[in-house]
Amino acid sequence: MNITIKSPLDMHLHLRDEDMLKIVAPLSAETFCAGIIMPNLVPPITTIEAIKNYKQRIKDAIGDEEFEPLMTLFFKKDYTYEFLKEAKEHISAIKLYPSGATTNSDGGVSSMDIESLRETFEAMSELEIPLCVHGETNGFVMDREAEFGSIYEQFATSFPKLKIIMEHITTKNSVDLLDKHANLYATITVQHLFITLDDVAGGMLKPHLFCKPIAKRYEDREALLDVALSGHPKVMFGSDSAPHPTHKKECCGCAAGIFTAPIALAALTSLFDTNDALEHLQAFVSDNAQNIYDYRPLTKNIVLIKEPFTVRQSYADVVPMFAGETLPWSIK
Amino acid sequence: MNITIKSPLDMHLHLRDEDMLKIVAPLSAETFCAGIIMPNLVPPITTIEAIKNYKQRIKDAIGDEEFEPLMTLFFKKDYTYEFLKEAKEHISAIKLYPSGATTNSDGGVSSMDIESLRETFEAMSELEIPLCVHGETNGFVMDREAEFGSIYEQFATSFPKLKIIMEHITTKNSVDLLDKHANLYATITVQHLFITLDDVAGGMLKPHLFCKPIAKRYEDREALLDVALSGHPKVMFGSDSAPHPTHKKECCGCAAGIFTAPIALAALTSLFDTNDALEHLQAFVSDNAQNIYDYRPLTKNIVLIKEPFTVRQSYADVVPMFAGETLPWSIK
Repeated sequence: MNITIKSPLDMHLHLRDEDMLKIVAPLSAETFCAGIIMPNLVPPITTIEAIKNYKQRIKDAIGDEEFEPLMTLFFKKDYTYEFLKEAKEHISAIKLYPSGATTNSDGGVSSMDIESLRETFEAMSELEIPLCVHGETNGFVMDREAEFGSIYEQFATSFPKLKIIMEHITTKNSVDLLDKHANLYATITVQHLFITLDDVAGGMLKPHLFCKPIAKRYEDREALLDVALSGHPKVMFGSDSAPHPTHKKECCGCAAGIFTAPIALAALTSLFDTNDALEHLQAFVSDNAQNIYDYRPLTKNIVLIKEPFTVRQSYADVVPMFAGETLPWSIK
Repeated sequence: MNITIKSPLDMHLHLRDEDMLKIVAPLSAETFCAGIIMPNLVPPITTIEAIKNYKQRIKDAIGDEEFEPLMTLFFKKDYTYEFLKEAKEHISAIKLYPSGATTNSDGGVSSMDIESLRETFEAMSELEIPLCVHGETNGFVMDREAEFGSIYEQFATSFPKLKIIMEHITTKNSVDLLDKHANLYATITVQHLFITLDDVAGGMLKPHLFCKPIAKRYEDREALLDVALSGHPKVMFGSDSAPHPTHKKECCGCAAGIFTAPIALAALTSLFDTNDALEHLQAFVSDNAQNIYDYRPLTKNIVLIKEPFTVRQSYADVVPMFAGETLPWSIK
C-alpha cells in the first residue's frame, strides 16, 4: 500500500547553525519541500543581513535537494514599519519568544503588555506578516501554555487583522481557542500527537522526549489528535524538530527539544493510518499551511509505503524520536 | 551557632546491596542512628532468612559505626499469621508496593482489593506490625498519589487497628488525610520539601531530581512544609534516599531515585533554620518516629554548625542532591 503526499511542509523547524545545520538540514530537505525556519540562533536573527546570510548557509547545507527555507525574524518591539516593509521581502513570519521560555530565547519579550507591542503588531497587520508565538508564561510547567491562553485572546481581539500562529500547541485549552478567534491558527508537532507527560516522566525519565512546551495530559493529547486527524483547517504540521547532541540530552541538565525531522512523515502517516484518517493527512502536512500562509510551494511528491521502518539510533550525534523503534510506514 | 540533634532517624531508606551497599550504608550511619531499610532488592526480601542475611550484610558494610538497620519485609498477600508472628521478631514494618510503581517493585501487589488483603492486614493489626505503603496508582503521573488517597482511606477505615505509613508523600491531598484518619501517618523526604516539578522539568530536565512519586505543584510543597516545619506528630523524616550510579541517571532512560542520605541532615537543618522552625527539627527527624513506631533508639548526638557546606559532586559514582551547591549548615 502506497500514499503520496504532495509538497509536505514543516511549518516550525529548527535547523541550528554550523556543523549541526549541515547534519540536519539535508534530512529535512529529503522529505519536505519547505519549512518555516526558526530564528533563535545565538545571536538571534534580527536583521535582513542575518536573514540573507542564514538562508544562504541553509541552502549550502542542503545542496541539490529542492527545499525552500521560509525565513523568520526574531521578534523585537523596536522593529519599525519601514524595517518590516523591507524585511517582508525576505521573511514568511516573525517569531515571538517570551524571554527565557525555551532554548536561546533570552533576548525575547519580557512583558506581554499590549501597548508596548502595539506599534509592531499594527505594522505586521498592515504588511500581512504572520506572528508566530511560543505561548508559555513563566508559571508552573504544566500550566504555562494554558496561562498564556488569555494573552493569545488579548492579541487576537486587539489585533484582528494580525494572523497569529500558536506554535506547537499542547493543550485542550489552546485547541479550543482555534474556533473562538478567526485570526488564531496553530502548529502541532509529531511528539505531542504521540506522547503525554507519562511518556516523559511516568516510568523512566526520558530526556529524548523532553521538549518545551512539555507534553501534557491524555485529554490534551486527545484534543490535539481530534483537530489534526480531522484535518481542521486552522492547524498545520510544524515539527519543532530541535536537534541537540547526545551530551546535551543524556546529562545532568538535559536541554529541551526532540529531533523528529527525519522520521516525521513516516510517524505521521503511521498515526493517521492507525486512526483511519489518511484522507486528512495531506491537509495536515501541507494544504492547510498553504492556505494559512497564502503560500504556493514547489511541487515535490513524497511517496510512503506500508513497510516497516526501523528508526536509526542516531543521526551523527543526534538521537531521533522513536530511535530503535519500528514504525509501520516508510518513505519509499 | 550549633544545634544538636538527638538520635536522628531515617524512616525510609534504600541501602541496595553488594558494592552499592558498601558505598552508601556507611554514609547513612555517619549521621543517623537507625533507619527503616526498604526490602525491594532483586529478589525482594520475603523470608526471615533473607532478612537476617541482609541485616548482616548491612552491618558488615557499616563496620564500627553505631547504626541500627530496622528491617522490613516486602509485602505479599500469602504471609500467614504464623509466619508474621515469627517475622515480627526481626522486622519493624512491612512495605507494600503496587506492582510496577517504582524501582524493583515488579513482585508487588497488582490489585488493592480489600478482601484479598484482609487476612494479612488483620494478622498485622493483631501483631502490631506497621504497614508502609508506596501509595501510587498506575494512573497519570501527576495524579497517581492523589488517586491512591481513596485506597489509603479504605485501608484506614477497614483496618482501624493497623498502623499505616503513607510513604514519601508529595501532595496536599495526602497531608489532608493525616488529620482525617487516626491510623494514617506519613514520611516526607528532603527533596519533596525543596522541589516541585518545575525543578525537575521546568527549565533543563534534571535526572538527579527525578524520583517516584515525582515532585508536584507549589501548593503541594507548601502543604508538606506546613506539617514538617510545625512538627506535626504524625509525620516523620524518611529520606527515600535511593542511589543509582551515574550511567543509570544520565542516560536515555533515567532511573527514579534521589540520593540524599549524606546531605539530608544538613539540608533539613538549613531548611528549618531558614523557616524559623529549628525548634521542631528534633520532632521531625526523630521524636515523632519514635512515638509512631514505639521505638527507643540508641543515644547518638549529631551536632550541626552554621557553617557553609559545599556538597560533593559525587560519592563514588553516585551524584547526591545539591551536588556542587553550598548549604548554610554543616555536620560538625
